[in-house]
Amino acid sequence: MSSSEIILNATIMGVGMHLGAWRHRSGSPSDYINIDYYREVAQLAEAGRLHALFLADTLAVSEENYERPNLGAMDPTAVLGALAAVTSRLGLVATASTTYNEPFNLARRIASLDHLSRGRAAWNIVTTFIPDVAANFGKGPLLPHAERYAKAEEFVDTVIALWESWEHGALVGDKASGLFADRNRVHPVNHDGSFFSVRGPSTLPRSPQGRPILYQAGSSEEGRALAARAADVIFTVQNTLPSAIAFRKDIRERAVREGRSPDSIKVLPGLVPVIGGTEREAQQRKTELDELAGEAELRKLAARVGIPVSELALDKPLPFDRIKANDKFNASRGFQAAAMQLGASENLTVREILYRNGGGHPQVVGTPEQVADFIESWHRAGAADGFNLMIDELPSGLRTFVEEVVPLLQRRGTFQREYRGDTLRENLGLGNPHDPVRDQERRSANYA
Amino acid sequence: MSSSEIILNATIMGVGMHLGAWRHRSGSPSDYINIDYYREVAQLAEAGRLHALFLADTLAVSEENYERPNLGAMDPTAVLGALAAVTSRLGLVATASTTYNEPFNLARRIASLDHLSRGRAAWNIVTTFIPDVAANFGKGPLLPHAERYAKAEEFVDTVIALWESWEHGALVGDKASGLFADRNRVHPVNHDGSFFSVRGPSTLPRSPQGRPILYQAGSSEEGRALAARAADVIFTVQNTLPSAIAFRKDIRERAVREGRSPDSIKVLPGLVPVIGGTEREAQQRKTELDELAGEAELRKLAARVGIPVSELALDKPLPFDRIKANDKFNASRGFQAAAMQLGASENLTVREILYRNGGGHPQVVGTPEQVADFIESWHRAGAADGFNLMIDELPSGLRTFVEEVVPLLQRRGTFQREYRGDTLRENLGLGNPHDPVRDQERRSANYA
Repeated sequence: MSSSEIILNATIMGVGMHLGAWRHRSGSPSDYINIDYYREVAQLAEAGRLHALFLADTLAVSEENYERPNLGAMDPTAVLGALAAVTSRLGLVATASTTYNEPFNLARRIASLDHLSRGRAAWNIVTTFIPDVAANFGKGPLLPHAERYAKAEEFVDTVIALWESWEHGALVGDKASGLFADRNRVHPVNHDGSFFSVRGPSTLPRSPQGRPILYQAGSSEEGRALAARAADVIFTVQNTLPSAIAFRKDIRERAVREGRSPDSIKVLPGLVPVIGGTEREAQQRKTELDELAGEAELRKLAARVGIPVSELALDKPLPFDRIKANDKFNASRGFQAAAMQLGASENLTVREILYRNGGGHPQVVGTPEQVADFIESWHRAGAADGFNLMIDELPSGLRTFVEEVVPLLQRRGTFQREYRGDTLRENLGLGNPHDPVRDQERRSANYA
Repeated sequence: MSSSEIILNATIMGVGMHLGAWRHRSGSPSDYINIDYYREVAQLAEAGRLHALFLADTLAVSEENYERPNLGAMDPTAVLGALAAVTSRLGLVATASTTYNEPFNLARRIASLDHLSRGRAAWNIVTTFIPDVAANFGKGPLLPHAERYAKAEEFVDTVIALWESWEHGALVGDKASGLFADRNRVHPVNHDGSFFSVRGPSTLPRSPQGRPILYQAGSSEEGRALAARAADVIFTVQNTLPSAIAFRKDIRERAVREGRSPDSIKVLPGLVPVIGGTEREAQQRKTELDELAGEAELRKLAARVGIPVSELALDKPLPFDRIKANDKFNASRGFQAAAMQLGASENLTVREILYRNGGGHPQVVGTPEQVADFIESWHRAGAADGFNLMIDELPSGLRTFVEEVVPLLQRRGTFQREYRGDTLRENLGLGNPHDPVRDQERRSANYA
C-alpha cells in the first residue's frame, strides 16, 4: 500500500460514541448486547472497505452506565469471534487490559481469533485507568501509572513470545508418518519476570499473518515508548493539527531509535464525524444528540481532567491551575492533555469545549465533503496515517460515512476501493512482524 | 420436556476424540484451527437436534500434542462466539478452568456468549489437573485437589452472583426520560473471600435464560458436592451400568439434600460411538483408528492411572497395588477410578482395556441400532439423563450419528424431533435457575 492511502477503522463503543446516541437512534436500547446489531455494523464497515472494526472495552459498570449503555459491556473477543464468522476481510481489533488479564490466556484468545478470522485479528493494548475496574479484581487500588506500564511492557513481550513460539511450518501434519508437529520448531518461552512466569509454548501454531497486529492506545511518555518498541498501530487523541503532526513525528523517530522503519508503525488519531446532507443538517444532528446527552458530557469532562464537576463553570475557561495541582491524577494522561490543550489553544469556555466533543477526539460537524476534506488534510500534513472513526451513533453514522464519505475518498484516490490482501497486516500495508523480543535479545547479546 | 426424553451433546476435542482421528480422516490436519470445520460440525449437530456442542479445553501444550492436535488448542469462548453467529438453537458449552481465570473476566465472557446466542451458553466448570498448565501461570506447582475445589466453590458462587447482579427488567431503556438502567435493581456483589475479592456488578444485564447453564465435569467427592450444590448438568465418566446408576442416584440424592429437585440436575456420562453400517464395518473403523494411534493410547492410560508406561504389560491386568500406592496422584480421580473399575470388573488385560477406549468413557462399536439401544438402555435403567457424545472422528462420526442414530431414536419417541424452546435451559428441560448463593444466605440467616 502506498503511503498516500488512508487507513480507516470504525470504533464501536456501545451504540455510538455520543452519550446521547442510545436515545437518539431508532433501534432498541438493548442493541449493544444484540448479535444482529454487531453483524450489521461489521458488514457495513466491510462494505465500505474500512480496514478494521475496533472494539473498546471496560471491565466495570460505573455510575454513568446507569444513564447509557456501558461502552464495553460485552467481552470483545466473544463479539469479534461472532463477527469472524460473518465477515471475510475486515480487521477485528479487541481491546484488552494488561493489568487485569493473564498473558497466557490473552495470547491464546487473540491467537484463536486470528486463526478463526484467517489472519485478521489485532489486540489493542490498554493498561486500564478506571478505579471501578480495580475493585473487580481484588482489594488493592488501581496500580500507579508507571507500574501499570512496567507490567504492560512485560505482558506484551510475553504475549509476542507466545505468538512466535511455533515457527512457521512447525505444524507438519504428515498423516502417513504420524508426525503432527515438529517439536524442534516449537519453543517454550520460559519467561520469568517481575510480574509473570510463563513457560509456554502456545497451544496454537503461527497465524497466517505471522502474529496478530498490536494496537496500543495511550499517549503518555510510557505509552509512546511501548508503542514505538512493540506496536504496529498507535491510537491517539490529538485535538489540533500541530499537536498531531508533532506526535506522529515523535512516534516515527522513536521507532527509528528502536531499529524499526518509521513506516512500520501507523499513527491513527480518533475522529468523530457528525455528518449531514448540509452543514445545517449536521449541526441539527449534533444539537439533538447533545440535548439528549444532558449533563453527562459535563461529568465526563470533569473526570477527564480530574477535578469535581462543581469546579467547572460553563461560561468560564477550564481551571488550569486547579487541574495541574491534582498530583493524584491516575487516569488517561493523553485525554487530560488533549482537553487542556484544546481549551488553552483557542481560549474556549467549558461550554465550548463540551460542544467540541468535550475535549476528546476532534470532531467534524459537516457535510461528507467537509469530513473527507478534514481526513485528507490531516493525512496530507503528516498528522495521521489514518483515523479511528469514533462514530457518533450506530449504525446510522457509519452508514452515512460508508455511503457518502468513502466514495468521495475513493474518487480522489486516497482510500482503497478493494482490500489489498487477505490479512489485516497486508491491508494495513505492514511487512513482516517487527520483533521487539528478539531485538532485545540481540541487544543484550551485543552487550555481553 | 418429559423425563423420558434423552439429552445428547456433541463433545468436540480437536478433530475427534480418538487419538488416531487426525490421520484417519480426509480433512486437513489444521482443521482444528479452521472456522469452516467448526461451522460444519455445529450445523451438523443442530441439524440433528442435538442439545449442545461441548468444547473441551486445555491450557498447555503437552508432549503428546506433538503427535496430534491439541484437544483444547483454541479458546472455547472465541470459537463458540463464531458459532453463535451461524447457529440458532444449539447450546454452546465452553469449558473453562476455575484455577486459571479471574471470576469477573470469565463471568463476563460467558455472559457475553449468552447474550450473543440469545440464551444458549453454558460454562463447563473444571479445576484443571495438568501440571503443564500450572507452568503457564506462575512458578507454583499445580494446587492440590482439595484446594483446587475450595477455590472452585468460591469461584462459581462469585460468577453466579455476577450473573444475577442485574435483576430482570433492570435494563429499562426509556429513551423519553433518559432512564437507561434502574440502579436500584442492579446490585454490587461485594464478594470478599479466601481467593477472590470482586465488587461487581456485572457489565451485562440478565440473560434470556436467567443465567448461563452450569456444567460441572469432575466426579470426585468434591466434584460431586460442587455439582449437587450449583450445577445444572454433571458430565461424568462411568464405565459400567451399575456404577452409572449408583452415580446418578447419588447425585440426585445430594441435590435433594441441597434443597433442589432431583430433576434440576442432569447426569450425562460420556459415550464414544464407533459406528458402521454393519458390526464388522464398525470394528474395521475402530481397528483402523487404533492402528493409527499407535502407542499414544498406552501412554494416555499410564497417565490416567498415574504410573509410568514401563509398569504396564499389555497382556497382564493393571497393577492395582502399584496404582493405589501412588499417594502423589493429582490428576482426574474420576478417570482413574473408571479405568481401574473397568479393569477389575471384567478382569481385563491392559490390551483389552486399551481396546475399550483405554478405560475412559464407555464405547459402543457397532451399528446405529446397537448405539441407539445402548443409549436407550442406560437411559431407561436410570443410569443417564443423556450422554455427552465423544465423537471418534469429526465430522464423519457425527454425520453418521445424526443421519443414522438420531432418526432411530426419534422414531422410537425417545429423542426430540424439534427443539422445545429457544434457550438451552428450555431445551434441557430445566426450570428457573437454582440459586446456591441465595440458598446459602438463607441457611446462614436461619442459623443466626
